Amino acid sequence: MINKLISNIQKTNAPIVVGLDPMMKFIPEHITKRAFEEKGETLEGAAEAIWQYNKAIVDAVYDLIPAVKPQIAMYEQFGIPGLVAFKKTVDYCKEKDLVVIGDIKRGDIGSTSAAYAVGHLGKVTVGSKNYYGFDEDFVTVNPYLGTDGVKPFVDVCKEEKKGIFVLVKTSNPSSGEFQDRVTDNRPLYELVGEKVAEWGSEAMGDAYSYVGAVVGATYPEMGKVLRQIMPKTYILVPGYGAQGGKGKDLVHFFNEDGLGAIVNSSRGIIAAYQNDLYKERFTPENFADASRQAVLDMKEDIASALAAR
Amino acid sequence: MINKLISNIQKTNAPIVVGLDPMMKFIPEHITKRAFEEKGETLEGAAEAIWQYNKAIVDAVYDLIPAVKPQIAMYEQFGIPGLVAFKKTVDYCKEKDLVVIGDIKRGDIGSTSAAYAVGHLGKVTVGSKNYYGFDEDFVTVNPYLGTDGVKPFVDVCKEEKKGIFVLVKTSNPSSGEFQDRVTDNRPLYELVGEKVAEWGSEAMGDAYSYVGAVVGATYPEMGKVLRQIMPKTYILVPGYGAQGGKGKDLVHFFNEDGLGAIVNSSRGIIAAYQNDLYKERFTPENFADASRQAVLDMKEDIASALAAR
Repeated sequence: MINKLISNIQKTNAPIVVGLDPMMKFIPEHITKRAFEEKGETLEGAAEAIWQYNKAIVDAVYDLIPAVKPQIAMYEQFGIPGLVAFKKTVDYCKEKDLVVIGDIKRGDIGSTSAAYAVGHLGKVTVGSKNYYGFDEDFVTVNPYLGTDGVKPFVDVCKEEKKGIFVLVKTSNPSSGEFQDRVTDNRPLYELVGEKVAEWGSEAMGDAYSYVGAVVGATYPEMGKVLRQIMPKTYILVPGYGAQGGKGKDLVHFFNEDGLGAIVNSSRGIIAAYQNDLYKERFTPENFADASRQAVLDMKEDIASALAAR
Repeated sequence: MINKLISNIQKTNAPIVVGLDPMMKFIPEHITKRAFEEKGETLEGAAEAIWQYNKAIVDAVYDLIPAVKPQIAMYEQFGIPGLVAFKKTVDYCKEKDLVVIGDIKRGDIGSTSAAYAVGHLGKVTVGSKNYYGFDEDFVTVNPYLGTDGVKPFVDVCKEEKKGIFVLVKTSNPSSGEFQDRVTDNRPLYELVGEKVAEWGSEAMGDAYSYVGAVVGATYPEMGKVLRQIMPKTYILVPGYGAQGGKGKDLVHFFNEDGLGAIVNSSRGIIAAYQNDLYKERFTPENFADASRQAVLDMKEDIASALAAR
């Protein structure tokens, strides 16, 4: 799947992933209204609105981008109906030939991590049959529990030729509280980065590993160091746009080959029509066109930053 | 909810939580067979088997214990039908007046952590209405992302009078890889423990905080130190039984008042009928009676260890 991700990136010439993190306040009223009319002001109604909103955005941008990253929390908050909308979104994006990165940040020990891995990337056995539960292409994984917690994911990745992105240095303001702690003369995130490279070395695609890393756009200098520590690791970079990361901050996350990183933007794309930049040109009715324009602009921003380095 | 947990512990005189972590290999054949006859060898069939298995165990032990801890990964691996069984289990246990600790180990940043918190502990707004998604009483939380990731859970806990247990030192063999790293002359898990005490200080129940900690039974010496660092923090202790922790290892996790810790056992209880200790006395048909006996034995083991200290 890392090979497919890279080939999708090369085809679209866009190292971009669109974060499908729907919040009710992003969804235009005409969609919510119709969904509530159909299913009531219920969890099912909310899930229907989310699904219609996602579908319109995906339809508007799928030819421009290699991948999407639905954030499962935004669906899970609506209970079972929300998770049904998550699954529908995953399936629909795969039909559109997009690589789907499930942003699930799971992580546990041994058989429990194996259960998450099976449920999101692999197949589970029921009697004499096998079934895929959620069937994303990649998922994000939390490393706090150490190798025991990550290895079961790597095993499933090898079996299914899928991938993971392990949290190394997250984009949020307080990520340094634990991740930046100095141990043996270097910050913890570097140690996690080394482990990511080690776990990944036994699960290689053609040029990059099945085991990627998450490093926030908001910490470009740390990204530079981590790029060197993990040369064969694809880096998923959140924090662009709404969180403050800019195109020029991103160049350090890429390798010389122009590959090695994929930059996420969520609300900057999916709620573009609410943004001052696009508000005058787009109405809530053509929110998906605003999303398309935001993708084009992001692509341009990153391309010119990479060209200027 | 921390007050209710403590009152349940005092009522049952059992600082015990039963981990409802069903695996297909634990479920007796007569249950699986019936479920498959009804729903086929499908995800729905597996979910039905899990639900019937859980229900029988809960019916057999609910009067002896204060709380249960369903591990969501074991349900999530069966996709949506699995999560429906999770929700049914949560609801049923609450009907039986058990405190339900959702072992979900979620953790993200800002609005995303808020979405998890709302989905599992709080209520989500849909139009003019509010709904509870999964509605557990407590959940487990991963601290790797720092205060940003944990605070949204604490906020919902305050609003709903519910609680969390933050991973501090996990029970697995490789938990030390990152958690034991020395920084400023002490291991990272102590620093996390201090933060837990700090986060908890602003969300206090009568005697203990809404913010608890997870510390593995397999590391009793570390438990002793953490007990002192977090005097008002309830400690959820996994790793008893199948993972190797014994009654005498547990005494350090408790305060002088006999409170402050709740010990989890999962397969040691729910799959007791497969254990050499019980195999001769119990058949797969009366697996739930074996679970009841295992609860009584665990209660005795902990009580005598506490009496001997």
